[in-house]
Amino acid sequence: MSEARLTRVVCRQLAPRLADLSANHRQILRTIAQETSSGAQILILPELVTSGYLFSTAAELEACAITPTDPLVAEWAAAISGEAVVVLGYAERGDDGAFYNAAMLLTADGVLATYRKAHLWDEEKLFFTPGSSAAPIVETRFGRIGVMICYDLEFPEFTRRCALDGADLIAVPTNWLREDQPVGESPANWCIAQAAARVNRVLIACCDRTGTERGKEWAEGTAIFDHFGRLVAAAGQAHRAESEVDLIATRDKRWNANNDAFADRRPELYA
Amino acid sequence: MSEARLTRVVCRQLAPRLADLSANHRQILRTIAQETSSGAQILILPELVTSGYLFSTAAELEACAITPTDPLVAEWAAAISGEAVVVLGYAERGDDGAFYNAAMLLTADGVLATYRKAHLWDEEKLFFTPGSSAAPIVETRFGRIGVMICYDLEFPEFTRRCALDGADLIAVPTNWLREDQPVGESPANWCIAQAAARVNRVLIACCDRTGTERGKEWAEGTAIFDHFGRLVAAAGQAHRAESEVDLIATRDKRWNANNDAFADRRPELYA
Repeated sequence: MSEARLTRVVCRQLAPRLADLSANHRQILRTIAQETSSGAQILILPELVTSGYLFSTAAELEACAITPTDPLVAEWAAAISGEAVVVLGYAERGDDGAFYNAAMLLTADGVLATYRKAHLWDEEKLFFTPGSSAAPIVETRFGRIGVMICYDLEFPEFTRRCALDGADLIAVPTNWLREDQPVGESPANWCIAQAAARVNRVLIACCDRTGTERGKEWAEGTAIFDHFGRLVAAAGQAHRAESEVDLIATRDKRWNANNDAFADRRPELYA
Repeated sequence: MSEARLTRVVCRQLAPRLADLSANHRQILRTIAQETSSGAQILILPELVTSGYLFSTAAELEACAITPTDPLVAEWAAAISGEAVVVLGYAERGDDGAFYNAAMLLTADGVLATYRKAHLWDEEKLFFTPGSSAAPIVETRFGRIGVMICYDLEFPEFTRRCALDGADLIAVPTNWLREDQPVGESPANWCIAQAAARVNRVLIACCDRTGTERGKEWAEGTAIFDHFGRLVAAAGQAHRAESEVDLIATRDKRWNANNDAFADRRPELYA
């Protein structure tokens, strides 16, 4: 692995403020500027980092929802230093009048891709419409980045498709509620991310959130897994996980002279 | 959960002797008699427990391979106490002249199902022909048992199909070589079994082996996971994992009032 091929991935475990787009915008802007100017090449922020999570009314969501063409997004793109790629979760107001739990991938040139969460968790179903597309795979100068959101990860067929479609790294903005986690153990979703990374031989970077909303807390489970499913970075007190990873190395799916994680599949037995 | 519905699952992490069918037969017979007479209701033994694993010649395999109608199998069935179900891995001589890395599920009445490993690991490909069927699901008095073998688990579509086909518990005879495991950590396959148990809300019981063959050792990673992906039993020095589990409880796939692990699937996005 040549050092020149290593990419610095950073996940920043922010605490968005519920239904306060303006405050969240400033935090996003500041974080993008700080991290990309100090070396982050792929920066991942949490799910719904523009809006917070625990809406009690549709009005709270509506007050925060934006389109990917919102002028705020142009400000974020303008704050990106150099060639960095940023993935973040946001509340999207669709052209169809519906709201989506979405993510975007942007560079200094603007939005390269958007994605609408396909698998909605719990009360998200009361506020959001599920997306109708598979995870996008975006060709970047660092490699191919797939984007999915939180509960999407719990569908291994979805992760598999993303990997078969060519993702080297899957960026996963999440909001893992602490109440859903086993007490005293790693976040329940880590084993799922680990397994998905290992069986697909892809990198997976999950950016969770922190803070408190309506008395609820998050797992603060931000973590980066390599393409053997090994935990290579987790957010501690600094709410920040960072790792230098080799996206291109993930394209070799061979386990040994006789096995290849993809070629060994038997799709005729899965239908 | 009523106690009457609990089923005692036991995995016995045996050390078969390479290419010595007679010794392995005696060990299987003794283990079945002991365990089923002392309370095991579902007993799982390792992959290739009739033959050992690291063949260097086809002759070694041929000397051990049996058909499911072999008189030895009738002896195992006769050794089963009461209503117990036994799952074990064996080297199968097919009617077609090919050899299969196989498993069988048997009761005192005889063989209820056989299965041929669909995903072969490493040099198994030199000796065995892969199976061409999905994991069987067997209706038993304790619930529905699916059977797969070792590397099969690394294909989440395969486990998913087994769960969608109705398995409450997936019995997985394995041979996890120690050299394939991360040093000082849990067996690499645990996260895969955990994730599969959790996303499918099924029980998974993996019976690994012990012993040494040609200088190689096994991970001794025998473990039982509940339908939330929690480790509920692992083999220690006694090479034996036991747990009382509720197979019927796995049929409720709901996470909460709004989510169901199966109903939330979006198959149109996975193709």
